[in-house]
Amino acid sequence: MTDAPLGNRHPSLWGDPEQTPTAAEVRDVRELLAGRFADADLGWYSGIDWRRVKVPTPRLPIPDALAAFTTDTGPARLLHAVGRSFTDLVRARRGDYGTPPDAVAMPRTAAEVAAVLDWCADAGAACIPFGGGTSVVGGIAPGETDQPVVTLQTRAMDRVLDIDAVSQAACIQAGASGPVLEEQLGREGLSLRFYPQSFEFSTLGGWIATRAGGHFATGPTHIDDLVESIDAITPRGLWSSARLPASGAGPSPDRMLLGSEGTLGVITQAWVRVQPRPNHRAGRAVQFGSFAAGADAVRALAQSGLQPAGCRLLDPTEAALNSAGDGTAAVLVLGFESTWRPVDHDLDLALELCGDAGGVALPERPRGPSEQWRSSFLRAPYLRDALIGLGMVVETFETATTWDRFGELHAAVIDATQEAVARVCGDGIVTCRLTHAYPDGAAPYFTVIAPGSRRAEAQQWLEIKLAASEALAGAGGTITHHHAVGRDHRPWYDRQRPDLFAAALTAAKAAVDPTGMMNPGVLVDQSA
Amino acid sequence: MTDAPLGNRHPSLWGDPEQTPTAAEVRDVRELLAGRFADADLGWYSGIDWRRVKVPTPRLPIPDALAAFTTDTGPARLLHAVGRSFTDLVRARRGDYGTPPDAVAMPRTAAEVAAVLDWCADAGAACIPFGGGTSVVGGIAPGETDQPVVTLQTRAMDRVLDIDAVSQAACIQAGASGPVLEEQLGREGLSLRFYPQSFEFSTLGGWIATRAGGHFATGPTHIDDLVESIDAITPRGLWSSARLPASGAGPSPDRMLLGSEGTLGVITQAWVRVQPRPNHRAGRAVQFGSFAAGADAVRALAQSGLQPAGCRLLDPTEAALNSAGDGTAAVLVLGFESTWRPVDHDLDLALELCGDAGGVALPERPRGPSEQWRSSFLRAPYLRDALIGLGMVVETFETATTWDRFGELHAAVIDATQEAVARVCGDGIVTCRLTHAYPDGAAPYFTVIAPGSRRAEAQQWLEIKLAASEALAGAGGTITHHHAVGRDHRPWYDRQRPDLFAAALTAAKAAVDPTGMMNPGVLVDQSA
Repeated sequence: MTDAPLGNRHPSLWGDPEQTPTAAEVRDVRELLAGRFADADLGWYSGIDWRRVKVPTPRLPIPDALAAFTTDTGPARLLHAVGRSFTDLVRARRGDYGTPPDAVAMPRTAAEVAAVLDWCADAGAACIPFGGGTSVVGGIAPGETDQPVVTLQTRAMDRVLDIDAVSQAACIQAGASGPVLEEQLGREGLSLRFYPQSFEFSTLGGWIATRAGGHFATGPTHIDDLVESIDAITPRGLWSSARLPASGAGPSPDRMLLGSEGTLGVITQAWVRVQPRPNHRAGRAVQFGSFAAGADAVRALAQSGLQPAGCRLLDPTEAALNSAGDGTAAVLVLGFESTWRPVDHDLDLALELCGDAGGVALPERPRGPSEQWRSSFLRAPYLRDALIGLGMVVETFETATTWDRFGELHAAVIDATQEAVARVCGDGIVTCRLTHAYPDGAAPYFTVIAPGSRRAEAQQWLEIKLAASEALAGAGGTITHHHAVGRDHRPWYDRQRPDLFAAALTAAKAAVDPTGMMNPGVLVDQSA
Repeated sequence: MTDAPLGNRHPSLWGDPEQTPTAAEVRDVRELLAGRFADADLGWYSGIDWRRVKVPTPRLPIPDALAAFTTDTGPARLLHAVGRSFTDLVRARRGDYGTPPDAVAMPRTAAEVAAVLDWCADAGAACIPFGGGTSVVGGIAPGETDQPVVTLQTRAMDRVLDIDAVSQAACIQAGASGPVLEEQLGREGLSLRFYPQSFEFSTLGGWIATRAGGHFATGPTHIDDLVESIDAITPRGLWSSARLPASGAGPSPDRMLLGSEGTLGVITQAWVRVQPRPNHRAGRAVQFGSFAAGADAVRALAQSGLQPAGCRLLDPTEAALNSAGDGTAAVLVLGFESTWRPVDHDLDLALELCGDAGGVALPERPRGPSEQWRSSFLRAPYLRDALIGLGMVVETFETATTWDRFGELHAAVIDATQEAVARVCGDGIVTCRLTHAYPDGAAPYFTVIAPGSRRAEAQQWLEIKLAASEALAGAGGTITHHHAVGRDHRPWYDRQRPDLFAAALTAAKAAVDPTGMMNPGVLVDQSA
């Protein structure tokens, strides 16, 4: 197989090296940072050439039967050694790829997936399912382990297998990334309408395994709601649920795989709900004197039944950073979409509600804050590469909480994170936006940018992450709304979930993965 | 404790004996049946007096510590011996209550629930959680068993404990029935807006345990979508999930309890999403030349994003039976509701879609088919009592399937059931309505009314049920959309769910219920 199953991706950058910030962009970012952080060392560090990194000798040989789709070359192993969290990238730039997997298998069929699991079982190896490799929570890296590790890369299974236009559903292989599946659905005029920030690389199987969230603010926004049925290969064989629009027959089998993060088996394909592309669109941006006033409007909107597709509230600093405001006001980016019905009236009603909460609608512009926002949303992970190269500590984390606790949680998390940033980095920016709105609560998303100390960035990040996670757990938020648990969120996840559910999930895993070989260390403790 | 913890309910009638059909109503029903089934014996059989039924000696003594809320009197045990399926009622009328529980506990607090479970564990007894007792699938009756059985009746825990008006959520004890919780929420101008047909008696805990469906056709219609968090007492202790509007942290703990049918523990309370009562309403009835044409309109509506609250399509016979039509046309009962936004425009758009599918809107009437429908919906279970007394075999069953398979499933199920009815009863009516509509499929609900042979009704019902269940499983439908699994649906449930999910669920149960004492025989096999 090819040495580069992830295409032309670079192991210490977000994605396609062709898309990394240009020298001019880096110059602009540096200028911006210099204005805000006068004392920061903004020298550029591009990292050591990853082709010169020494990769340890593989701890298990590849059986002949699997050689056609399995490799243990250094580049392939490095490309699958880490995810895309801040620490992953910072360490990789320094040549530290932790413990790379011993082999990378890229099965093309469910039978080949089963063969890989059989091999792992026989060889006493761990198996880590790997989609786009965009985990920002340490979900796909082998931990420090003496056990050999095989990473199972699903990207060779990327076809839309079947489209049921009558039911508006499609059967899609788990390894299809956002653009790959949208291109195939688009030929039939359909779309999954699921756009996480990692859209360019992340895969359907990864979305299901991590209960990913798309960028729509209301309605079916978690992948959970788009799933009709799932096929997975577990160490004990095939787990295949029936294709149903709804069912009341016992606990949902799909809901046990949703969020399983590779610990139960490898998701190979799923029937998902698709829809025609929207024909009707309307949007506006609305300014609020404060983030709290904007949040009141978001709550009113979420409880109105209007279901805006976009309802993203940026705090003043975040609005400025995203060229959607001047830094003095919070900005709500509001959008409606529908395939079938006009949405102008919905927008009018929404603007009325915003007005009641003190919002002032900004003038319509040909390319307004909404488009502005969309392009910076997809560009953000690339810009992080520039920030990292310039020595900044960067973290984004998110949660969800009920409305009654929202104000307190927001204040507590901003305070605790700001305090940690000041303590650890001397200075820094902590911003917040609301990304998803529910009738009973909201999902705030926080961004941290602070000048790091060269070679200490990972440790600085960790201290800030600890403070932020403690604050949001203490304020009653979930440790993650859509970034998953992985290794990074595990301590707070353990506190969040009911202990007896942990016992039930551990037992459920043991039933389908008796040796505990699937993504060990994630979600449940390794069996003894 | 009182002998009649279910109020003035009767063990062989649907509900409140005061509400049973009057002599005049029975006369009307008889006349109707005589017109359709000329040869049927329509003599009235009211059943033997349940107070004269001999109840076996209890197999375990009640500990003093639990005596304040536990009883083993005959009446209490008979009242908890059976659910409300056709066979339950037919057999009960003949004095056959199967194996009644040995004791009925009615704990008032979570601590008392835990004490009951401890007692059961010590005494080697099974424990069956019991809410309103309205199961139509054999979900709450002790099977034939040598093990002593304690039924845990939750109705003493029926308070709304907390209302969070900001988040539009309420913490409600599991034993609250529909009217009881609505009355408490109504004082604050709020409603759960969840109306299953069993609303009068069934409880929040029962709804969660059975993944019940409300009568709204689209939007959040399963109780699953209304749950924020759940507290349950398992044999190993408290399982309490965090109150969150959404989370991506691992598989959802709540989704493991949703549909668990008492096999994991006793649900004691839950935070649920509530909302203000609707201020805007609009509805119409639309006639279609055929059920298939009506189904096309329902599909278009479900895929339009209009989200009608009511979108119930009655086939011609069903329309006639419910006084919503003359028997020559299918009737779609369409309704929109909103708290905040006017819905007249939505109705206009919906009627346009119906017109495209050949539908003709019926004139608006002060008390139109929609109100007509609502009253017969809630009255139906009482009318079943009249049908049973007159010797009819009555069954209602439901499923859900994707739109691409809907036409075939409908034809196959109607044919197979009609054939079974003719074979078993000589003649009979089989009707269908669509109760719930999803973008990717629909939930058809079937009703069977056939003249039975006295004393053979239960066997006749079983033969018809077998044929219907085989047909719907064969056509790819779920064995239940909202009636649950219980003992009656178990064979088809076992075929429907993935085998490895069954293994995982069985293991999960063993982790929280090591001795297998919770509702044994339901969902998973009894541990050896």
